[in-house]
Parts: sequence; structure tokens; C-alpha cells
Amino acid sequence: MQAVLLATGDEIRTGAIIDTNSAYIAEKLEMQGVAVYGHVCVGDRRADIRETLATISRQAAVAVVTGGLGPTADDRTAEAAAEALGVGLHLDPDALKNVTRWFEQRGLPMGTANRKQALLPEGAVCLPNPVGTAPGFALTIADCRFFFLPGVPREMKVMLDRHVLPALAERMTDKRAVRQIRVVSTFGLPESAVGEKVRDIEDQFEDLRVGLRVVFPEIHVRLYGSGEDETEVRRNLAAAAHAVQTRLGRRVLSTSGAEMAAVVGKLLLARQATLAVAESCTGGLIAKQLTDVPGSSGFFVFSGVTYANDAKVRVLGVDQATLDDLGAVHEDTAVEMAEGARRVAAADFAIATTGIAGPDGGTADKPVGTVCIGLATLDGVRAWRYVYPFGDRDLNRRIFAAMALDRLRQYLQGHLVLESIG
Amino acid sequence: MQAVLLATGDEIRTGAIIDTNSAYIAEKLEMQGVAVYGHVCVGDRRADIRETLATISRQAAVAVVTGGLGPTADDRTAEAAAEALGVGLHLDPDALKNVTRWFEQRGLPMGTANRKQALLPEGAVCLPNPVGTAPGFALTIADCRFFFLPGVPREMKVMLDRHVLPALAERMTDKRAVRQIRVVSTFGLPESAVGEKVRDIEDQFEDLRVGLRVVFPEIHVRLYGSGEDETEVRRNLAAAAHAVQTRLGRRVLSTSGAEMAAVVGKLLLARQATLAVAESCTGGLIAKQLTDVPGSSGFFVFSGVTYANDAKVRVLGVDQATLDDLGAVHEDTAVEMAEGARRVAAADFAIATTGIAGPDGGTADKPVGTVCIGLATLDGVRAWRYVYPFGDRDLNRRIFAAMALDRLRQYLQGHLVLESIG
Repeated sequence: MQAVLLATGDEIRTGAIIDTNSAYIAEKLEMQGVAVYGHVCVGDRRADIRETLATISRQAAVAVVTGGLGPTADDRTAEAAAEALGVGLHLDPDALKNVTRWFEQRGLPMGTANRKQALLPEGAVCLPNPVGTAPGFALTIADCRFFFLPGVPREMKVMLDRHVLPALAERMTDKRAVRQIRVVSTFGLPESAVGEKVRDIEDQFEDLRVGLRVVFPEIHVRLYGSGEDETEVRRNLAAAAHAVQTRLGRRVLSTSGAEMAAVVGKLLLARQATLAVAESCTGGLIAKQLTDVPGSSGFFVFSGVTYANDAKVRVLGVDQATLDDLGAVHEDTAVEMAEGARRVAAADFAIATTGIAGPDGGTADKPVGTVCIGLATLDGVRAWRYVYPFGDRDLNRRIFAAMALDRLRQYLQGHLVLESIG
Repeated sequence: MQAVLLATGDEIRTGAIIDTNSAYIAEKLEMQGVAVYGHVCVGDRRADIRETLATISRQAAVAVVTGGLGPTADDRTAEAAAEALGVGLHLDPDALKNVTRWFEQRGLPMGTANRKQALLPEGAVCLPNPVGTAPGFALTIADCRFFFLPGVPREMKVMLDRHVLPALAERMTDKRAVRQIRVVSTFGLPESAVGEKVRDIEDQFEDLRVGLRVVFPEIHVRLYGSGEDETEVRRNLAAAAHAVQTRLGRRVLSTSGAEMAAVVGKLLLARQATLAVAESCTGGLIAKQLTDVPGSSGFFVFSGVTYANDAKVRVLGVDQATLDDLGAVHEDTAVEMAEGARRVAAADFAIATTGIAGPDGGTADKPVGTVCIGLATLDGVRAWRYVYPFGDRDLNRRIFAAMALDRLRQYLQGHLVLESIG
């Protein structure tokens, strides 16, 4: 069963907003065994949508269409679908109930424009929207089953789960293929090197496809498995993930797709240890990443984002003489920042970053991309200096943050030799 | 002149990565007066790419294709283009020079696979890639001019600017229409309310289109102007931006599209004032947003991300009794955090956040979505409590951060009455 996705709307067509719905829907469909042939986007014009629906009806067995179901004059998807099917619009009682109930539940008056949302093509089946005013609908053009959903991602997701995926499962007349995905997250090798090391794993397992995804600065190895038996597919993927781990060793963050901050958090929780952070160039990014992890209050206690040198002295107790003699971007400063953060927050571990993310501030001996990282542990402290060639402030900050967390991860996992600390 | 965009690659087709290139290219083309009809995505299969190129050649005068120019066996765009044009591949000397030079400059050995990147369709014009190994190329199928670019966004952007946009400007045989865009950023009203207030401005100005874009939690009013004379279009847009400002008053952050943190930074720089932050629930997000602003070291000095209560006491000097009696999420705690951050960092202003972003931690009287915000100024301190209904950790944190920054913005702009402070 082959599917095509269509996103409608001038804001997407002209690039004012990025279409994230199609990727979300594609992944859900592929996991259910529906092959996605491709995606299409057109604007708000009725004729354009109508022609595109007609084209898709000749290419695909299934189509998911998003957008254009709102109350305004720009929302023309229902009209276009009716034209493509050669029928008229009619007031659908289920759809009207959906719209009316939404306003009643909120005690709000219903605008006349919203009544338009209950006009569906004749013969369409209403797909109620539990979280918004726009009901969706399903209909068949030629031999293609079309599902029309609202463009608001939150509403689209609920309706995809509730209406589209179950309907597709029913339509899979052939024995349902099981599809599973497993992700191995890695850090420290470039994409090309990871690719070289893992590409041939594809040939060593049956029905396995290996893909790479850059989640900068991490590289995620995506293992796609398929087969008839779920247990079998799962076992196959676990063995493939193990093979990836064997090849990549300490570069592997997690064989279940967890990202750096979550991996560090899990390691700390396992030791019942706490972490403090001192950030200069990363400007709060490390704290943000750590507190994005559910349950982070169990290990993360404090980050001192000491952007000004004066704050490094006042809050973290960095020695003014260190800053005067060596500068803010120096291993000794990173050490004092890490020690200071650990002390003021009474934490078990601390990491510190101080560097030059750019675009300005680089010098001949400390170019943009230079970072000094400090790690303070129960056993002592250590610092490292790295220089990255990205020349981009955002990329630099992201790799500085990852590198600092990775020093702690490798220490906690025993990859950093204890003797070298202190 | 009508354009269609094509993104190729299985990772995009299956939803493993989101296609951000098409939105970027669409906006650039539209601004240059090239109407984008729509976007298409297909996978890596040569036949699929070939068929799609043939279809596009019948629809559009211009096409920009991204992806599939790498060194691996999955990269089949050049072959597909040659087949669509009915020619063979040949080793292009310019392309070979591009690839070879990239490796030479880095002192790296060139892999044999990379030689494949210099195989272009016969008759194609090489588009050198100054920032990567994959050269692009241009060729004409039927009456459509195709530009093939790498899929890596950083490389695509450089090559679009250097090769595609100048070529399109030359091809615009009709009098070139000037297109300009102006963005008014707002915060504090929902999208529907902003829409109601500004929608009819479209009718009051010639050749103006008004669009809304949610940059959560901000709403950006996008004014698209067109005409024959650049000065005229610019003046028209300035008048329209002024009209938006009149309607929305203190909800307007900037009539030149600046986002919250940048607006606050500019206000602080104008006063030569410094800012410290104390963050609990926002977990470093405010610091991250402030340090994303170029030149932030001119106003931002410190954020104490005091996630643990103990850190609030130790670092910011919050009274343990306040926490014991009233809890961490309380106006009095927010006040003490803001005062503490201002004092320890010796800053002119400080803002503080303490709240419950979720998913857990809510209670009957302090549900998920509750935030207390503190503002410490030269004149005294004040706190506010808000409850947001989003029920989503990420959205809650973003609106908490924006609300804290907005309290300071409104104070600095004189919208918050001084008498109520202290």
C-alpha cells in the first residue's frame, strides 16, 4: 500500500512556516508498513489543491492531506476535494456537532464563519476533532482513500492516531508486516566515519536497513527492521544495535536512542550523585539541555551562567589573578569555575565551559571555536582545551556543551582513566 | 516565472529528518519575485527522481532540487537527471577540480567514491561548491531550468545565494517586481486576537498582504509588499507596520521583527544597564535566549539556574524560612531570587522565574502551568503569578521565559507604572 502526503497552505508554500507535519505522518505510516512514496505541498488556491488531489488519486492508494480546514476564506480544502470528486458540499450533522460542542464546552459564542467548517463533500465520512474546531473527513477519489486533517500539529497528531492509523491497519489486507525502529546515539565521530564503520551491518542481518541522522553534534544510527513476527524483529534489531556498539565502543551514548543530557542524567541517578555546572560561552545551554530531561531535579542542582568575568569571581570564586594573568578562556579558569560551581552548590560533580563561540572575540592563539572544559569530581579536577572549525556561533555552542557533558559521561563510564584526574 | 522545489532522499521521505531547505528556498525565491507553485519530496530511487523531474519540467519554468549529490551509492540525483534529459554522465573537469581542491586544502586523501561526485550529466553547467565536496549543476529539461544543489543546509544556502538567485534575476525578462517583507513581532495576545486586529490593514494599503506566523509564544505579523519602485514599497510597508503598532500598542515588541530577548537587550544597552537572572523552572532557557543575541555580553552578566532549593539558598541567598513556609513557587520566593541575583552579580536589573512546568509537580492550588515572576529594579521589586493552560512542559517553559522578559521590557518601556513597584 503506497501513500502520498499533501500539505496545503500559502504559509508553507512560500516558506513562512516549515512543514513538520509531513515528516511526522511519514514516520508513523512507514512504521505501520505503509510505504510513503513522497510528499507534496501546494498553496491555498482551490484549483491547485483540486489538481493535486486528482494527480495523487492516480499515484497512491492512500493520501493524508493537512491544512485548509479552518473557518476563514483561505481554507478551501473541502471545496477542492468536492470538486475533485465531482460532488457538492453539504452541512454534515456530525461535523456541525463537533464544531458546536467545541464552543459550548468553552462557553463561547460560535461565529458564523465556524459553521463553514461543518460543510463537507457529499459522501465524505466526518472524522471528529476532539481538540479543536476543525473536523476532518475521509473520502475516496478513484481508488485512493484520502484522509483530510487540520494543519495545526497538535490537532493533526491526535486525529492521525485516532482515525487514520486504525483505518489503515484495517485496510492492510496482506499479512501485516511488522516494522520497528531502533536508534543508537553516538558522539565524537563525524557522520562519514560512523557511516563507514556501520554501513555493512545492513548485510549481516536479514531485513535490516541502516540510516544515519545528524542530530548535531550527535550522529544517530537508525536501524529499521521488518518481518512477520514482532519478537523476531525486535531480537534482530537488538542484535544489530549490539553490533553497532561493538564497532563504535565509547562513542556510543545509548542503544535506545537517548541523547547526551539524558544519558548523563541516567548515569548520575544510578550513582545518586548531583551535578552543578558553570557556563560562560554556552550561556545556559547545558542547563537547558539537562532540565529538558524528565526527572532532572533528581540530579541537576545548579548552573552558574557567569557570562561576565566579574560574575565568575563573585559567584564562583574564580581568582581575579587567574583572569588577569591567563584570561577567561584558559584551562586554569575552567578548573576554578568547575571547582567553584561544585563548592557553592555542594554538588558531587561539576563541569565548566569557557570559550569563544564567535562570531567575534577570536585571537591568533585563541581563535573562534576554542573552548576550555573543566571537570570537578570527588577525586580532583581536570581541564581540556579544544578548537572546533565550524565558524558558527550556534554550532560552536552546541558542540561545546556536548563536549563538556561527554567528558563527564566518559568519566562516569570509566572511559577516562582516573589517574589522569587531579 | 513559476518555480517548483524538489527535495530528494529517503531520510526526508520517511520522516527521519524534516525538510527545512524547501521553506528557506521558497522564501528567497518569493522575495525575488519568483512565484513558488509548490514543493515535492521523493526518496532515493532513481526512477522516482527521474519521473518527478519529468513531471516538474512540464509544470514549471524553474526548479531547485536539493539532495542526492553525495559520494555514496544512495546519491543518485545526477544519474536521474541524465536519464530525464536522455543523456549520459561524463567526468566534468570543473566538478573534479571542486572535489579535488576541497581535499587538497584540508590535506586529506580523496576517496575514490568522491570521484563519482564529479560525474555530471552531459550538457550540464557545474555550480562550484565553495564549502563542501559536492558540486551542484544546472541544466534544462523541456522548458524548465533545473538547479541541483546539495542537501546539507549550510552548503545549499551558500550555493543558492551564489549561483541560483543571480541566475534567476537574469532570467526575469519582464520588468522586475520589487518584493519586500516587514515583520512586526508581538507578544501577549493569542493568534486569533492579533488576526482580528490587523487583518483589514491589508485593504488599507495597496499591494499589501498580511500573514501571521506563530513563533511561540510570540505572534509575528508579516507584511508582504510588492510594487515597481523599491522606495515606494519600503515606504508603504513602514506605514503598514506603523498601523499595526497603533492597533496593538504595548503588545508590539518590534516593528523590524526582533524577538523578545533581542528587544530587551537593546533596551538595556540603550540605558547602559546590566541584567542578572535567577531561573528555576525555566532551567537556563532565559540565559540561553539572552546569550543568543549578538553583543549580549554588553548587558547580560549572570544567570543563577538554581534548580534545587538548596542552591536558591546557597547561591542567591533566598531565606530557608520562605521556602519552608511558602514553598519554592511563590511570589515571595520570586522576589528573593530576583533580589539575590541582582545582588550577587551586582547588576542593575534582575528577573526571576519559579514555577511548575510539568509534566509532574502540580497541586490543586499550584497546578502545572503556574509561574511566579520576580522583577528587581533600581526602584524596588515586584512579583506576579500566572497560570497557563498549555499542559506541555516545553511550551510552559517558553511562555514562562517570555513573560519574565516581557515584565522587564514593559518596565523599561514605561508600560508598567513605577508606583506599583516596591
